[in-house]
Amino acid sequence: MSYRAPIKEMAFCLNNVLDAGRLSGTDKFAEATTEMTEAILGEAARMSEDVLAPLNVTGDLYPAKLDNGVAKCSPGFDAGYKAISEGGWVGMAGDPEYGGMGLPLALMSCVGEMMSSACLSLALNPLMTQGQIEALEHHASDKIKALYLPKLNSGQWTGTMNLTEAGAGSDVGALRTKAEDNGDGTYEITGQKIFISWGDHDVAENICHLVLARLPDAVAGTRGISLFLVPKFIPDEHGNLGPLNNAVAISFEHKMGLHGSPTAIMEFAGATGWMIGREGGGMAAMFTMMNNARIGVGVQGLSQAEAATQKALQYASERKQGRSPVENGTGIILDHADVRRNIMTMKTLTSTARTIILDAAISTDLSKGLDGEVAQAQAARAAFLTPIAKAFGTDTGCEVAEIGVQVHGGMGYIEETGAAQYYRDVRVTAIYEGTNGIQAMDLVGRKLMDGGVAAFGLLNEVSLTAAAAEAETPDLAALLSGAEMSLNATTHWLVDASMNDRFAGAVPFLRAFALTLGGHYLLKAAMADASRLPLARFHIRQTMQQVDALCSAAREGASVLYALDVDALGA
Amino acid sequence: MSYRAPIKEMAFCLNNVLDAGRLSGTDKFAEATTEMTEAILGEAARMSEDVLAPLNVTGDLYPAKLDNGVAKCSPGFDAGYKAISEGGWVGMAGDPEYGGMGLPLALMSCVGEMMSSACLSLALNPLMTQGQIEALEHHASDKIKALYLPKLNSGQWTGTMNLTEAGAGSDVGALRTKAEDNGDGTYEITGQKIFISWGDHDVAENICHLVLARLPDAVAGTRGISLFLVPKFIPDEHGNLGPLNNAVAISFEHKMGLHGSPTAIMEFAGATGWMIGREGGGMAAMFTMMNNARIGVGVQGLSQAEAATQKALQYASERKQGRSPVENGTGIILDHADVRRNIMTMKTLTSTARTIILDAAISTDLSKGLDGEVAQAQAARAAFLTPIAKAFGTDTGCEVAEIGVQVHGGMGYIEETGAAQYYRDVRVTAIYEGTNGIQAMDLVGRKLMDGGVAAFGLLNEVSLTAAAAEAETPDLAALLSGAEMSLNATTHWLVDASMNDRFAGAVPFLRAFALTLGGHYLLKAAMADASRLPLARFHIRQTMQQVDALCSAAREGASVLYALDVDALGA
Repeated sequence: MSYRAPIKEMAFCLNNVLDAGRLSGTDKFAEATTEMTEAILGEAARMSEDVLAPLNVTGDLYPAKLDNGVAKCSPGFDAGYKAISEGGWVGMAGDPEYGGMGLPLALMSCVGEMMSSACLSLALNPLMTQGQIEALEHHASDKIKALYLPKLNSGQWTGTMNLTEAGAGSDVGALRTKAEDNGDGTYEITGQKIFISWGDHDVAENICHLVLARLPDAVAGTRGISLFLVPKFIPDEHGNLGPLNNAVAISFEHKMGLHGSPTAIMEFAGATGWMIGREGGGMAAMFTMMNNARIGVGVQGLSQAEAATQKALQYASERKQGRSPVENGTGIILDHADVRRNIMTMKTLTSTARTIILDAAISTDLSKGLDGEVAQAQAARAAFLTPIAKAFGTDTGCEVAEIGVQVHGGMGYIEETGAAQYYRDVRVTAIYEGTNGIQAMDLVGRKLMDGGVAAFGLLNEVSLTAAAAEAETPDLAALLSGAEMSLNATTHWLVDASMNDRFAGAVPFLRAFALTLGGHYLLKAAMADASRLPLARFHIRQTMQQVDALCSAAREGASVLYALDVDALGA
Repeated sequence: MSYRAPIKEMAFCLNNVLDAGRLSGTDKFAEATTEMTEAILGEAARMSEDVLAPLNVTGDLYPAKLDNGVAKCSPGFDAGYKAISEGGWVGMAGDPEYGGMGLPLALMSCVGEMMSSACLSLALNPLMTQGQIEALEHHASDKIKALYLPKLNSGQWTGTMNLTEAGAGSDVGALRTKAEDNGDGTYEITGQKIFISWGDHDVAENICHLVLARLPDAVAGTRGISLFLVPKFIPDEHGNLGPLNNAVAISFEHKMGLHGSPTAIMEFAGATGWMIGREGGGMAAMFTMMNNARIGVGVQGLSQAEAATQKALQYASERKQGRSPVENGTGIILDHADVRRNIMTMKTLTSTARTIILDAAISTDLSKGLDGEVAQAQAARAAFLTPIAKAFGTDTGCEVAEIGVQVHGGMGYIEETGAAQYYRDVRVTAIYEGTNGIQAMDLVGRKLMDGGVAAFGLLNEVSLTAAAAEAETPDLAALLSGAEMSLNATTHWLVDASMNDRFAGAVPFLRAFALTLGGHYLLKAAMADASRLPLARFHIRQTMQQVDALCSAAREGASVLYALDVDALGA
């Protein structure tokens, strides 16, 4: 058995845990009914299983190459990309006025999960384009929109994001790429960008680079940064491709995984670009896009957790070793308690990650589909959940893929099994689009600037679940309630703490919040379907028990971390 | 700065935390004085830093190959191996009667750590030989000992262990390799073995395979297994190499990491072998060797944790990004609280792993250097610590190497940095020599068969440390005492539980025990040297806080893990 898209699980999560029916109740997403959603999921599942999944190993074994400056993708990736673009999957959430389908982010996230589980390196390509579509919709002129968006939504052209430079990673404000006004509505872009995913390739006819750069008289730091659109081939006003721009990939990186995705160093040598948004508004424009992109990267982590779980469960159900420790056992290694612990851990973490991500996506959608205060409240809720979705989704991808290797034993370390590829491929997701440490800092910094309103709102939802479960499963309700109280107290502590004390506890706080949300969702799921109770019981009575310790660590403050200087740390 | 051997840290751990002076108090290890130990550590450090460390990347980029049946190792590995063998490092712990140096396992572990930090794939070679030396010392005839041991101790010949077959991994008893008596004192060995580390190579003149096989009339299962020595070249009685044996590597595996170490499928096609130990005594003989080999693999995990920590600390001390969040900060990323949390976690886990491993090694040495009941108590103590040393040492290697990648950000995912190699190389150590799940099952199964005597003895040592620290650091003493009480109650619960309920909690119990030992050691270290107090404080108040949750999980029993059948798990 190869990858099977978990569409029943997705539908259950959307309908029975997250009440996604709220989306079709809005005018904006009225078409996203349960039936339509299931039809779309089914269609995406078929493509992912049949067309994309077979490409995953190929991409790993035959990385994208740059031969004499010409990019050549992994064998079969062109056909795989064609299936994605011609299926309309790139422009799913795009504005229908420009050729998009106008569907919710929640649904796009489900489709993204399936494509990414099947072939993460290829699915990264449309994810980049989707981010660009959103940025252009919000910030580009009508002329740029009319020229570029239909091509991007159809997938004829793809998009990239060019932020990072050798000296400017997490600190984007340090970037040096220059933009000079040509006086004719265009700008000349000069500089070098690194780590550009799908920076060059041969699976689509044009590549549109969004590039952060600095005008000559710009102020220092992030407020001096503007955003520019730099196409590989400069199109005429009808979208016909014209001359090659001075924007070239000069090398592809040799990475631990994700070999099918060309990661380029891009050289902009006086390239022609168009400003997107206002002068000095580059970071604001990037942030618009990055919120949803963070959910998209969380989805990537989730996708590898799901795929790794399926592979491990299959292996554990077939591989026989020794006497079974249980009556009626058949000798498969899944008969062993510790292997079952591994599988239960994989399943519950994956389910938690998926539900956090879809919850964040639905709130994002509702913030757009509703109006006024209700919409603002959903936006704040989405903003709080987004760094958790990114960090916990990708941490879960790494952790679950690691357990997957372990379940395979020695075979997990041999590349032919495929378990190792998930482990290598997923690792970057915890790093790019803002490292998970940065996500946690965002959570305790910017996202607690409301005094904890969004956080306490979510914790109140957790309390309601605990109260609802009280009669049927008092032990689980009490433990969930206890975790909520720990988090509540810790949130108060953080809101009152100095910024560096908050940062010191950021990572354990984010994890504690995610694990508690997992208990909340899994218990809701069990109340909707009693056969799911063992998953809730395992998570709440075992994994979620870590919450107290994590909260305790989150309240320790920064001082202990600075008690040793560099020399003492190196001693 | 490349790898620097932490010989000061090792000496502190041996002398100030573990009272290694007890070793030179025995007749057997009288030579292992503090001065001699430091001289040996210094010598090994120089070789590891200067000769072995430069080979690490070479081994990764240019894996060992099998061309037309001829093994060719990574460039420079022959010279590296020569430095190891000619330095006398293979036979460090071997019996001086046969050319060994008779030094303690504790010291060999320190040297093994340094060689492995410098180049894990090459250092695996002498580790295999050292295991074979021990097996032959205990079980071989005097004639075999006289012929083979001097060659193995000098490193002229290397050793391998041939247990695993395609259908017999964790369940060694299922193996099918046949041995037939030739009637002349030799046996004909026929079968295929997989995952044979350094199964073929060109860095030494002969390779001695220890092979588990089954005689025609042997009973089923492990009691029907015997052990055979099968040399690549059959030596005459003077040790001169004779004809090539029918024991050949038919392929090398394509692995996620450890590329410099050739992992062979070995085909024994009627190869000539000599029985080691008694008929049916193969497993007993393997277990003799595997105890120390498990400590050796724990050392491998530790070695990558140490190397990854050094690399991450160096990067974090040099890489500048953004404004420093602290006064007097220089803008290096180490100024950030979360990066410091990562480094503190790396350092404290690494220190904990090293101390557990050396504690297990010293107890093993004392069990040999002492007599009577004292020796037996040390043997039981070593037996309890050994699976913890293996599993926690290698889990720490994986976890710390993963943090190391994260500290490097995007550069961590690019192979040229080296952080990714540690992450890939170390992963197998949690799998081979008995997966860490199997180690945990050994701990709660076999190692609690004494009713918990060894466990409670160790917990008593923890209590004494807590009591000693009460006056100076009452908060840390109280937390350590609390962890000890949780573990104590859990140990009682496990001793009374059914075997599968024990197995269900094995992994969290092992981790809880290791983290508590870490608190105990780090607090002892802080009492010996006050500058180490921040490390103890960080570990005990943050990481060690997980002990309660782990103990709680360890007491949950097996039933929840079996509540879902295979179909429900796959749904």
